[in-house]
Amino acid sequence: MAVTPAAPWVLHPERALPADPGTRAIARRIFDETERLPIVSMHGHVDAAMLEADLPFPDPSALLVTPDHYLVRMLVSQSTSPGAVRDAGVRSVADLGVAGGTEQEVETDPRVIWRRFCAGWPAFRGTPTRLWLEHVLAEVFEAPAPPSPENADALYDHLADRLARPEYRPRALFERFGIEVLATTDAATSPLDAHARLAAGGWGGRVIPTFRPDPLLEAGHAGWAAQLADLSEVSGIDAFGYDRFLDAIRERRRAFIRAGARATDHGHLRADMTPLPDADARALFESALRTPLDAGSAAAFTAHLLFQQAAMSADDGLVMQVHTGVVRDHDRGAAARFGANIGFDIPVQAEFTRALRPALEAFGHDPGFRLIVFTVDETVYSRELAPLAGAYPALRLGAPWWFLDAPEAMRRFRAATIETAGLRNTSGFVDDTRAFCSIPARHDLARRADASFLAGLVAEHRLDLDEAVDSAIDLAYRLAQESYPAPETVEVTA
Amino acid sequence: MAVTPAAPWVLHPERALPADPGTRAIARRIFDETERLPIVSMHGHVDAAMLEADLPFPDPSALLVTPDHYLVRMLVSQSTSPGAVRDAGVRSVADLGVAGGTEQEVETDPRVIWRRFCAGWPAFRGTPTRLWLEHVLAEVFEAPAPPSPENADALYDHLADRLARPEYRPRALFERFGIEVLATTDAATSPLDAHARLAAGGWGGRVIPTFRPDPLLEAGHAGWAAQLADLSEVSGIDAFGYDRFLDAIRERRRAFIRAGARATDHGHLRADMTPLPDADARALFESALRTPLDAGSAAAFTAHLLFQQAAMSADDGLVMQVHTGVVRDHDRGAAARFGANIGFDIPVQAEFTRALRPALEAFGHDPGFRLIVFTVDETVYSRELAPLAGAYPALRLGAPWWFLDAPEAMRRFRAATIETAGLRNTSGFVDDTRAFCSIPARHDLARRADASFLAGLVAEHRLDLDEAVDSAIDLAYRLAQESYPAPETVEVTA
Amino acid sequence: MAVTPAAPWVLHPERALPADPGTRAIARRIFDETERLPIVSMHGHVDAAMLEADLPFPDPSALLVTPDHYLVRMLVSQSTSPGAVRDAGVRSVADLGVAGGTEQEVETDPRVIWRRFCAGWPAFRGTPTRLWLEHVLAEVFEAPAPPSPENADALYDHLADRLARPEYRPRALFERFGIEVLATTDAATSPLDAHARLAAGGWGGRVIPTFRPDPLLEAGHAGWAAQLADLSEVSGIDAFGYDRFLDAIRERRRAFIRAGARATDHGHLRADMTPLPDADARALFESALRTPLDAGSAAAFTAHLLFQQAAMSADDGLVMQVHTGVVRDHDRGAAARFGANIGFDIPVQAEFTRALRPALEAFGHDPGFRLIVFTVDETVYSRELAPLAGAYPALRLGAPWWFLDAPEAMRRFRAATIETAGLRNTSGFVDDTRAFCSIPARHDLARRADASFLAGLVAEHRLDLDEAVDSAIDLAYRLAQESYPAPETVEVTA
Repeated sequence: MAVTPAAPWVLHPERALPADPGTRAIARRIFDETERLPIVSMHGHVDAAMLEADLPFPDPSALLVTPDHYLVRMLVSQSTSPGAVRDAGVRSVADLGVAGGTEQEVETDPRVIWRRFCAGWPAFRGTPTRLWLEHVLAEVFEAPAPPSPENADALYDHLADRLARPEYRPRALFERFGIEVLATTDAATSPLDAHARLAAGGWGGRVIPTFRPDPLLEAGHAGWAAQLADLSEVSGIDAFGYDRFLDAIRERRRAFIRAGARATDHGHLRADMTPLPDADARALFESALRTPLDAGSAAAFTAHLLFQQAAMSADDGLVMQVHTGVVRDHDRGAAARFGANIGFDIPVQAEFTRALRPALEAFGHDPGFRLIVFTVDETVYSRELAPLAGAYPALRLGAPWWFLDAPEAMRRFRAATIETAGLRNTSGFVDDTRAFCSIPARHDLARRADASFLAGLVAEHRLDLDEAVDSAIDLAYRLAQESYPAPETVEVTA
Repeated sequence: MAVTPAAPWVLHPERALPADPGTRAIARRIFDETERLPIVSMHGHVDAAMLEADLPFPDPSALLVTPDHYLVRMLVSQSTSPGAVRDAGVRSVADLGVAGGTEQEVETDPRVIWRRFCAGWPAFRGTPTRLWLEHVLAEVFEAPAPPSPENADALYDHLADRLARPEYRPRALFERFGIEVLATTDAATSPLDAHARLAAGGWGGRVIPTFRPDPLLEAGHAGWAAQLADLSEVSGIDAFGYDRFLDAIRERRRAFIRAGARATDHGHLRADMTPLPDADARALFESALRTPLDAGSAAAFTAHLLFQQAAMSADDGLVMQVHTGVVRDHDRGAAARFGANIGFDIPVQAEFTRALRPALEAFGHDPGFRLIVFTVDETVYSRELAPLAGAYPALRLGAPWWFLDAPEAMRRFRAATIETAGLRNTSGFVDDTRAFCSIPARHDLARRADASFLAGLVAEHRLDLDEAVDSAIDLAYRLAQESYPAPETVEVTA
Repeated sequence: MAVTPAAPWVLHPERALPADPGTRAIARRIFDETERLPIVSMHGHVDAAMLEADLPFPDPSALLVTPDHYLVRMLVSQSTSPGAVRDAGVRSVADLGVAGGTEQEVETDPRVIWRRFCAGWPAFRGTPTRLWLEHVLAEVFEAPAPPSPENADALYDHLADRLARPEYRPRALFERFGIEVLATTDAATSPLDAHARLAAGGWGGRVIPTFRPDPLLEAGHAGWAAQLADLSEVSGIDAFGYDRFLDAIRERRRAFIRAGARATDHGHLRADMTPLPDADARALFESALRTPLDAGSAAAFTAHLLFQQAAMSADDGLVMQVHTGVVRDHDRGAAARFGANIGFDIPVQAEFTRALRPALEAFGHDPGFRLIVFTVDETVYSRELAPLAGAYPALRLGAPWWFLDAPEAMRRFRAATIETAGLRNTSGFVDDTRAFCSIPARHDLARRADASFLAGLVAEHRLDLDEAVDSAIDLAYRLAQESYPAPETVEVTA
């Protein structure tokens, strides 16, 4: 089926800018200065191996539908309601190609999956998924029209045709997107092979790892001992002793730094960073070697180890990122049947004032320490995070994360934090995406949102236009660089 | 005193639409398509007996002032402050005609009550009560002018004149309001006599009951045993045994379904639905037969029984509504003196992520189960409810409830939920009112609010106008129907 | 260095009014009616001794930089980030002149401090500090231009020149600001000498004390016994016995009333006002005389004593103000090194529904009792405080406090509370400032914010313009007076 190039689909150039004409004109002038700035993507989940291999993307559904948990969860949420989603045959994530659990009947025909997605397009009205996909389809892939049941096959063919061309391979898109640097997320026990091959291969794109040690810090899980074994192997340090365990983690951090890492990332249920007396920590470690810790002890040990990670960051210069407050795999039955991380991750209330206190008291004024906190509980913005970031030099507020990475939520974030924390105590935009093709869409939308917010301040004579432009460049580009400084060169000591 | 028809009071046709002229024009076009749609009122507190008897309303105060706890509480809140409310003689709810406790001195002159209300009219600036009453007075009763101390008597006379006319009787208003279906709220032990007579009487208006078993699920209250006696009598099943207790509830649910019910409703302090092991539940039941349970056990038993209600809904198809998070009768002295439910009900923090998990894991993907959650703690919208509703097919977000059923709060609700849950995971508008004459006002205001919100998306090129119109019709009409499907016909087995 | 009067710096007259032209025109008309109303400043932290002495302010930095913890905390928060603040030599609060702890190296050159502030001016974009300082500099001191690294010295000289003139002394500014009444905050054990001398001196300015007994109610602190000694001395009542302790507090309240006080103020971690049985309270008092109470007992005793303060207010007519929910001196090391109250005070979650219940049940309908509640946790606005204030006659919502005293937060406050509590259940604007010269700036900004919010209601036809003007005058002037009525004359009985 042929593409229909005669009727191009053009997104409105002033989409997601304010409705009031005067304010929109200001926003447009601000956005003009940020729209084409390079992309600094300092935290996300793109796979380095994909860029290393640089193979064509397999098909539109495997690229755009099945791995996008924002998209999959929304379609599933409508799967028992009257309407197009149900009628298109969506009963579960498996009908959109998601495999990973015990479920045997998984849809494998990408064209069927694509038709289901197109039938469900109206479900995304008002969501960022809609805006991101419009950008991906219209701007990245020059699609002729938005998805609909009628054009599903034509659109599929158009995309498949594009994906087969060399200029749509991962590295070509990386360059076309104007990505200056891309940080991946990697297990602490990862040997970083793909990163090494990428670096050795001579391709110019800058792709750096991020150190994520979560399972090593969760001694209440049955798999913790296996984690220690992996850690021992990759670090060359026998990690089955408390001091050596910490040494092995330090060694992995150094290895990540050598591979270009700028940051660590930590995703536990709570942000608590209360250290334990040394003897207590050792005792918990020994106990955990024998049997998984109970919930209370496990939480205390995780808090202790997060404090140790903060101490290591103050020492080695890796920026410490915290993404907390989410019950992962809320539906345990669905996780078993379809796999983990399929959209059933639900936030709970967050607390930072007391949780971060020990680490901030210890390192909050240290010029070598940087802590960036992300939340999906926006009630802490004005109450806790803005006051903390507006006081402690080491702390910056991460960009609105996950469910909050959307225009209305970004507006609330700025309104809730600017008056207490200002703008330069925030991290700049962080996309946190695993959808490679959506990276420019996400940065574009964030730049529009910030231009819109700043335009409101200018329109109300609370800020001058030249200041707003300068701040918009901060938010779109400079702060992401500056919030994630490169650690100083580290000597290999182990 | 005569009406003054020469100077009609006309509400601004674009009230509560956005201020920006461009956005307002879009909102107006959207609202044009929803303004006159039929009213689907799937949850409220109108008395079926009123429609069955179809008697004239007694007087303006008994209709509009005394039973309206929004109105009464606001006037009382100003009763010790300098100003017109105090000067008009309002000292307590009794001065507005509220009786129901030990207080002996209750105002009985409706004209005096009416004058007090008119004197306090400025207290309602910025409140939904003001907007609803303007609609009721100007649109339903063709009042010549807003209330004021000067026109109190003339307005009273105008209204009294209208109330005496046949076209202002309950059924006539029901028809004039364009109510397609009206759901009442009824005790689980209610014999539903008025509903039966209404159905038998041949009047065309569709009035259906809603199953509310709250006191049966609260085994910490002294009146629980009496509830079991009532349940036994109305169901014909001896409910003084755990299995028979559940059977009797099932039987009442079937009776409600036979009477047309679509839903149940549950208003406990917490939404917790954690089931207990069967033996534990039986033991608590037996214990409660002897003496009211302590607070902890009572809460655990209520949680268990809510899970059982969810299981019954998955089985019999009644939609499960949850309205939780309110301390009822916060001022216990006032409740004793003046009666329960007089406005002193105050919300507390809500939690849903963990509370709903057992029920959603068990039934959240079941096509036969529908759960609709209402909250007066808006902090859970973006953090918990939108992520849950944007994942689980069975869950829908109820419309902004009670204190949040107001333009600013409705705007916040949409902004906080649309980006994660979209629009079609919400319930459509639910008025939850006991003020019969305010039903059209409430739906009108909600339709204005949704048209305004959608117009903002269109004005910012985040949605097309035709999509916005389609979604507005969803929110105003289709979703209320679809969120409360009729259970399939149930065979009577007991 | 000379002033540059040729190019006056004029603030935009419509700053902080809405962007939409139609709404702005309405806001301008409303603000015209409130802009020049007298200032009623019923709660703040200006030092009465300053007005009593009426000496010239020492220098621009000592007046505007060092004591302003909003300003100091923001500069410090940027002190380790690349940019002007760090480059200007700000490493800690000591570099801005803050002394009070063990730190020896404190900057003492006011000109150096001023240059550091000027270099950091861009850090305040979007903050209320920026708006307040613009007002102070341009309107109060006729500064020729905003701060910048280039004009730092010229601006310093300009301000120093102004401060040397008699018309910039405290009393002259007090009169120029149009302050009708100014309430200070004073320890319960203060002899109120400065207030007495001010009253005796015959200057017309009205300056009244506020009774703040916090440390007397915190029996978990080591300094509690010393507080009792001070209380005994100033009251003439031996306070080392439970009954005499309460008597001594009553006596101090009477002394404050005689000095013109209208209110008390209470700043504890929690708002809990649960009374203890008399015997338990006595036992805790006796125990605390021997050794500081543990945390749980101390909190229970504080809650008991807050209930007693409510009872005393119901008796003597002092308005009870509550400012709770803040962890003071979050960074204990910084507090030791630099002094207390230097900006490291961080909010935690607040709770009022249960906390205030005992006091509201006891006194919430008492015409002689007035409770005004301030919060830095805005999640309680719509959930707890608006429902409480919209029901209990005694309760009023305090103006947005501290971090929330800013345009965006004020807009959220009104939007979150008006629909349930209306306008007249709020306190009117309360500046709570220790920065004397910022008083008119703060009232000006609050009046602009309220005019803007009300204009939005008018533009959306939810309120008439004449009503909006009347309400704006309430909010700017009348409600502050009326919310803090003068106690009736109290007979001295002890």
